[in-house]
Amino acid sequence: MSTNQLDKKSQAWSALFSEPMSDLVKRYTASVFFDKRLWRADIQGSLAHADMLNAQGLISADDLASIQKGMAQITQEIESGQFEWKLDLEDVHLNIEARLTTLVGDAGKRLHTGRSRNDQVATDVRLWLRGEVDELGVLLTALQKALVDVAEQNADTILPGFTHLQVAQPVAFGHHLLAYVEMFARDAERLVDLRKRINRLPLGSAALAGTSYPLDRERVARSLGMVDEAGRPAVSQNSLDAVSDRDFAIEFTAAASLVMVHISRLSEELILWMSQSFGFIDLADRFCTGSSIMPQKKNPDVPELARGKTGRVVGHLMGLITLMKGQPLAYNKDNQEDKEPLFDTVDTLKDTLRIFAEMAAGITVKPEAMERAARKGYATATDLADYLVKKGLPFRDAHEVVAHAVKDAIAAGVDLSELPLDKLQTYNPAIEQDVFEVLSLRGSLNARNLLGGTAPEQVRAQVARHRTRLG
Amino acid sequence: MSTNQLDKKSQAWSALFSEPMSDLVKRYTASVFFDKRLWRADIQGSLAHADMLNAQGLISADDLASIQKGMAQITQEIESGQFEWKLDLEDVHLNIEARLTTLVGDAGKRLHTGRSRNDQVATDVRLWLRGEVDELGVLLTALQKALVDVAEQNADTILPGFTHLQVAQPVAFGHHLLAYVEMFARDAERLVDLRKRINRLPLGSAALAGTSYPLDRERVARSLGMVDEAGRPAVSQNSLDAVSDRDFAIEFTAAASLVMVHISRLSEELILWMSQSFGFIDLADRFCTGSSIMPQKKNPDVPELARGKTGRVVGHLMGLITLMKGQPLAYNKDNQEDKEPLFDTVDTLKDTLRIFAEMAAGITVKPEAMERAARKGYATATDLADYLVKKGLPFRDAHEVVAHAVKDAIAAGVDLSELPLDKLQTYNPAIEQDVFEVLSLRGSLNARNLLGGTAPEQVRAQVARHRTRLG
Amino acid sequence: MSTNQLDKKSQAWSALFSEPMSDLVKRYTASVFFDKRLWRADIQGSLAHADMLNAQGLISADDLASIQKGMAQITQEIESGQFEWKLDLEDVHLNIEARLTTLVGDAGKRLHTGRSRNDQVATDVRLWLRGEVDELGVLLTALQKALVDVAEQNADTILPGFTHLQVAQPVAFGHHLLAYVEMFARDAERLVDLRKRINRLPLGSAALAGTSYPLDRERVARSLGMVDEAGRPAVSQNSLDAVSDRDFAIEFTAAASLVMVHISRLSEELILWMSQSFGFIDLADRFCTGSSIMPQKKNPDVPELARGKTGRVVGHLMGLITLMKGQPLAYNKDNQEDKEPLFDTVDTLKDTLRIFAEMAAGITVKPEAMERAARKGYATATDLADYLVKKGLPFRDAHEVVAHAVKDAIAAGVDLSELPLDKLQTYNPAIEQDVFEVLSLRGSLNARNLLGGTAPEQVRAQVARHRTRLG
Amino acid sequence: MSTNQLDKKSQAWSALFSEPMSDLVKRYTASVFFDKRLWRADIQGSLAHADMLNAQGLISADDLASIQKGMAQITQEIESGQFEWKLDLEDVHLNIEARLTTLVGDAGKRLHTGRSRNDQVATDVRLWLRGEVDELGVLLTALQKALVDVAEQNADTILPGFTHLQVAQPVAFGHHLLAYVEMFARDAERLVDLRKRINRLPLGSAALAGTSYPLDRERVARSLGMVDEAGRPAVSQNSLDAVSDRDFAIEFTAAASLVMVHISRLSEELILWMSQSFGFIDLADRFCTGSSIMPQKKNPDVPELARGKTGRVVGHLMGLITLMKGQPLAYNKDNQEDKEPLFDTVDTLKDTLRIFAEMAAGITVKPEAMERAARKGYATATDLADYLVKKGLPFRDAHEVVAHAVKDAIAAGVDLSELPLDKLQTYNPAIEQDVFEVLSLRGSLNARNLLGGTAPEQVRAQVARHRTRLG
Repeated sequence: MSTNQLDKKSQAWSALFSEPMSDLVKRYTASVFFDKRLWRADIQGSLAHADMLNAQGLISADDLASIQKGMAQITQEIESGQFEWKLDLEDVHLNIEARLTTLVGDAGKRLHTGRSRNDQVATDVRLWLRGEVDELGVLLTALQKALVDVAEQNADTILPGFTHLQVAQPVAFGHHLLAYVEMFARDAERLVDLRKRINRLPLGSAALAGTSYPLDRERVARSLGMVDEAGRPAVSQNSLDAVSDRDFAIEFTAAASLVMVHISRLSEELILWMSQSFGFIDLADRFCTGSSIMPQKKNPDVPELARGKTGRVVGHLMGLITLMKGQPLAYNKDNQEDKEPLFDTVDTLKDTLRIFAEMAAGITVKPEAMERAARKGYATATDLADYLVKKGLPFRDAHEVVAHAVKDAIAAGVDLSELPLDKLQTYNPAIEQDVFEVLSLRGSLNARNLLGGTAPEQVRAQVARHRTRLG
Repeated sequence: MSTNQLDKKSQAWSALFSEPMSDLVKRYTASVFFDKRLWRADIQGSLAHADMLNAQGLISADDLASIQKGMAQITQEIESGQFEWKLDLEDVHLNIEARLTTLVGDAGKRLHTGRSRNDQVATDVRLWLRGEVDELGVLLTALQKALVDVAEQNADTILPGFTHLQVAQPVAFGHHLLAYVEMFARDAERLVDLRKRINRLPLGSAALAGTSYPLDRERVARSLGMVDEAGRPAVSQNSLDAVSDRDFAIEFTAAASLVMVHISRLSEELILWMSQSFGFIDLADRFCTGSSIMPQKKNPDVPELARGKTGRVVGHLMGLITLMKGQPLAYNKDNQEDKEPLFDTVDTLKDTLRIFAEMAAGITVKPEAMERAARKGYATATDLADYLVKKGLPFRDAHEVVAHAVKDAIAAGVDLSELPLDKLQTYNPAIEQDVFEVLSLRGSLNARNLLGGTAPEQVRAQVARHRTRLG
Repeated sequence: MSTNQLDKKSQAWSALFSEPMSDLVKRYTASVFFDKRLWRADIQGSLAHADMLNAQGLISADDLASIQKGMAQITQEIESGQFEWKLDLEDVHLNIEARLTTLVGDAGKRLHTGRSRNDQVATDVRLWLRGEVDELGVLLTALQKALVDVAEQNADTILPGFTHLQVAQPVAFGHHLLAYVEMFARDAERLVDLRKRINRLPLGSAALAGTSYPLDRERVARSLGMVDEAGRPAVSQNSLDAVSDRDFAIEFTAAASLVMVHISRLSEELILWMSQSFGFIDLADRFCTGSSIMPQKKNPDVPELARGKTGRVVGHLMGLITLMKGQPLAYNKDNQEDKEPLFDTVDTLKDTLRIFAEMAAGITVKPEAMERAARKGYATATDLADYLVKKGLPFRDAHEVVAHAVKDAIAAGVDLSELPLDKLQTYNPAIEQDVFEVLSLRGSLNARNLLGGTAPEQVRAQVARHRTRLG
Repeated sequence: MSTNQLDKKSQAWSALFSEPMSDLVKRYTASVFFDKRLWRADIQGSLAHADMLNAQGLISADDLASIQKGMAQITQEIESGQFEWKLDLEDVHLNIEARLTTLVGDAGKRLHTGRSRNDQVATDVRLWLRGEVDELGVLLTALQKALVDVAEQNADTILPGFTHLQVAQPVAFGHHLLAYVEMFARDAERLVDLRKRINRLPLGSAALAGTSYPLDRERVARSLGMVDEAGRPAVSQNSLDAVSDRDFAIEFTAAASLVMVHISRLSEELILWMSQSFGFIDLADRFCTGSSIMPQKKNPDVPELARGKTGRVVGHLMGLITLMKGQPLAYNKDNQEDKEPLFDTVDTLKDTLRIFAEMAAGITVKPEAMERAARKGYATATDLADYLVKKGLPFRDAHEVVAHAVKDAIAAGVDLSELPLDKLQTYNPAIEQDVFEVLSLRGSLNARNLLGGTAPEQVRAQVARHRTRLG
């Protein structure tokens, strides 16, 4: 009477079901066409589980050997594209398990002992995401290094620093780029923090309540490299939480959204800088496209598209939060919807980081245009105020003095540095010849020689710090 | 010297470019692998454009005939799966145009006269989405009809109506289902409204500024069925707006999000009702799945997954808004990111509406369980208060009287209808024998015989109204 | 024994409750400190309800008169700031009702006959929002008019039109501004559409199931101006839906998000244009602020802040969707969270639209800077290609010819119009003297004289159309 | 000629401005009515800055003493409600600085030396948020402790564990509650991680470029307790990043959204459990409210409202991401919009955590109802399958055997444990008398005695672990 439940999946889910799933339902609920991506993690998890089942005497050494042999063959079949993924078998787990059973018989049917798809899929996603987080860390490092290189070459290049997109004070172009290095460094920090919360083993939680088999969960954790910072096995402590928790997916996409927010800001600036009105940089042709109608166009498609892809990742974050809101414990089918947003977030981030690291090296800097722009907006007015403070004026009074001077200079159509000394002295008699050093862009730049400031000396110190940090 | 710019796309975008796109950039920026889905709209738009070019004397009748013949062949090639989509040609537009030129020579090169990919893609997406919106309208009607059928069968079935998930007052199960019909009817209304804003022709806006060719935009609009409610051609009035507008995509995904919010609420209730604690309904086996570990399980996977898919669609809405926020005019490459969210939103909605219409017919109602549950929570207490008001008590006083009665009934472990008349009279002497009719579930139900109320007579009237409305 | 339930709210909710709400809970659940804003709609709804109760013989003429008199006094008390809002009375409804009862006794206690707070609050919010939508319509008209005025003055002003923020083709600055008029016109359309779905009467649905009193819901609808386009009373058709529906709030905030997306795009451009690198416009000082440290700064704070406020409104949309996702019928306390996002969305929109209409008049246009910028990017290259097409070249070949010419012009550091005729003829011998008209900015602008195009004649025609439309 | 710029704020921003801000603009751009909340952090930061200015010889000891005295008075004025906040002075910073200058003259005007509002506000928000994060940590601990208490009392209480809201396997109610303890523990972990990124000093970055004054930034960091895990001063390393970074606000609201997602899940369950159909718990009256119309109602308002407030916090997260998307460096006025979402997020979280900790103690558990419900869904079917596996059947075969048994039991309307032994043996002859222990709820519960499992012994071990951890 009894037969393997997977054999007849296409007829009915189990003996309990009086009719097969409708085809529409099969397609609607099946996940195999996207979750097959987890196959390597699924097999890795199954091998660790089988090894432990044998160590605990729950399956024989022969069964373990059969499972290992079968999984090796399945690995080979998938890698070579020969594996036949079946919709009827719903997901990556049942597809692999059914194939294993075909290959090795009863040993395959014993693999699922003390395990449910609920804790299995939670384990698979964590294993897979851990690997991707590590790759993202590498890519974030590469992008930082590429930016540090350009920053070093431009430690002395004068750029108009903006606030409110109005010329504010001169900054080094290298200093500006290092602001992004700080952002991506924080992104990498966040990945390190959240990796701890990914790298915990749900397996052993079974469907929701734990299992009656004497599993050795810590052994499995160690096999899979799921250990905490002190090297102790990291094992989930509550079975209901373990199978229903998707915090790590939300936390990851939130961190990914921040990466993309940073990318969107850098992209916005690259696009501005490459516009003819700014004209601060050129991007290499290989990162641009033309127009189907306007023959003169060379468009910064890559940063534009990257800026647009911010929406995609933020959308996934919103989607995942909406997914989890108000779900009762423990596992619900809703959770199947966690995968596609995660997959697409990882793909988008990896592609974007890779292409930005490559593109950074393709930036041609136009220092004259930058410096010319810096001369337009009275960028050294604050330096004059500071000069007066050093002469004894309270800052608030100095600020007002300089506002008068700027007003007159605008009316005269000249820069502050072009006002003659005697004119300057009408604003405050303490002003002397040395003011002209203060009013020069280079003088202003060099003066901000404080930790975190824009002086070239500081920029070079930061470049050195980053190089040490990034290895 | 001069050659067709598309011939050498793999070497450089045009003569202006000194190097080809990097492979990474090609993959990152190409859209052909998802936008090829627009091919039918692309060809439809091109044929209308070519017809008008000829009518305006801009291309010859021979050129038009060649284009039509070429497009017929391309249609056949795509339908039969023989068309070769090339990454080098970036998108659906250049792929089709390049193939056309291969097939029919110069006539193909003349097709892009007075047109840019910017207005072309805007036209394609609108044509495609208009068709999908119409299909969604049909699916919404089918779902409403399916719900109306079940509602009619259950016009008299007593269900505990909940507020705060606490038993409130008895309602007809049919009445409850018709609440969802109202929601889906509003969804359909919204589609009708937004369709007007989709169905406007951007073609003729060229890259951003319009074109110097004497195009007849209204002729193209009429060819493509882009007419307003009065039958006049609906043509965009500003070229910059026309190429950069993605309002319709955001408006559509917002409407789609509301559809999914409604689906999520219905799903939540189906799941609750099918839980053993409620036990109000069963879903047919073909909409359920089992468990890999728990042999007794029959899970309402379809409503759960649908509830989860709400997140996916809401995420797309958020993504599209993020995409458009802060973009300067006119077309930017960011906009290419509008397509995948739209495609996935349409697919998700169509699948979900289809499966819900099918599932509605598979609901088994358990009226005894519903009625038993309605007896648990003093559902007719309001009826007693209303009874007292009709005897002359102000409502606020009646409310307080009944609160006392309920308190005593809870203490005694009985329903209000089980309190003897003399006990009831201690709360208010005006209570008489006829109170027991008022205190019955059926009496309560029938009493709410007001437009929009739950009385079976009202439910039947609404069923009739919906049938008329839905055709 | 029986007393008005509201008298002892601070001791217990009703006789059924054994203890008062904890103070923390009172504060957490009370809404009066924000929903008191609905007071006028609440009174308006109550008066229409009372009038109908009397017409139906459910309350006496004396009661009606007392209620009207009491409400008049309460109106006066609130307007003069003398009304004492009490936390213990939870919300605007109970505060007003309790005060009414204090003022007019039993008549006040009879007002709540056949009504629940569930249908009352739904009615209040709809009445209030309807009024605000109408005000927003007026503000959108005012903003459009202000933009049309500036557009008219700049029908001939040459601006570099951008795609990808790269110079594309010359456009009229007036044409560019009219693109925003199109967007705000669509926003107004959407408000008209959604207003229909706001303006439907839930009252008469009572708590969730309708009521046993013979109410005349259509009379109430007419009193409150809730009628459809044909003038028929617009009354909700399903009581469960009526008390739990918040679609209109989501639909409204989605439309509001689109308004803000448009504002964010316009803001982005104003900020760019006011930057020293563009230098296309100035904003009047009264819309700018300075810096606490940099004396020369004049910052475009208003558009920046408006751009930022996009996030606020989009956040409210996402909040409301999250709120409704997965809620079972009918009313749940979650719904109380609908108000603050709605209130803040309305306030933000009204302030922003008002300030933008005022700011538009404060824009100083710098036509020389715009035209100078238009000369930088080979903006008439497409015109040269079109010129060649008119000479018989297929468009794709012409595109490639011009790409060569642009390449050489860049190398020579000149504009296309600065290449001598004999040089131009090396690209294609059909080029003649008349090409120089085509290569001029003004010639290019005038040539795009097609419906929706940028030619000054078209801009003026659109200005006229908008003036007619806007009244 | 020169006068303090703040004296004449109402006339013009500075001498550079030709007209005052319009009143509408003042209200639109002012932040003082919400950012005054930062006053304590603002004064704390100013005192640390002044102390350092003196230590560096930039202001005199007398000036420092005057500033300290003035700030002490301002503190007292604000605490006592006497401080007059002025709209004309825009924000908390200028309000306090202007008052200081009134009180102590030139010393006050010297305070802003080497500082800008850009780095000042970044410092203020970080100081304030650090304090709130610490308070939230305390509240999360309190909530965990409250849940652990109820869990301990219910280590043996049998609850039907659900997956897909279908009865799955018996779990201990205590085990179920501890799942939430795990979630809130992860929330606390996340706060610890993100606190590191809040607790870094931007001061010294000035407007955007650093400053030319020889500030001792590390001294300020130490004064303000901004030190890293090794006790070293934590100082921002790039001035442009420091003034424009709002990552910490996004990271915080993302973590807050996860807290609220957990609250929403717990709320959903409390609401389900308190419904009459489940009837598993009662909430104390002080956490419930009644109905204005239905006298019998006692509604779980607190969890419903908390579930709804998830939307509010998620909305703030989305708002902040939208705010930062695509912003160029450095400070833009958009950033002012960071505060209200942060403030409201903090308030919502604190109120919600506080009320949930209080409410947990007010839960009345109904163990009979829980156990009765657990008997309804063949919750021990998996135990029978496991029993058969221990008898030698492969798991997949055992699963199918049990599905047959369940099918027959459903048909017979009995539980598996009610089938006679000889009937059970027809499914598999290995079944013996000891099966009935396995088929009991208590037997099933006790059997899951594995780390993370639901056996009461495990629950007690976890309670002990949590108590140790929570102190």
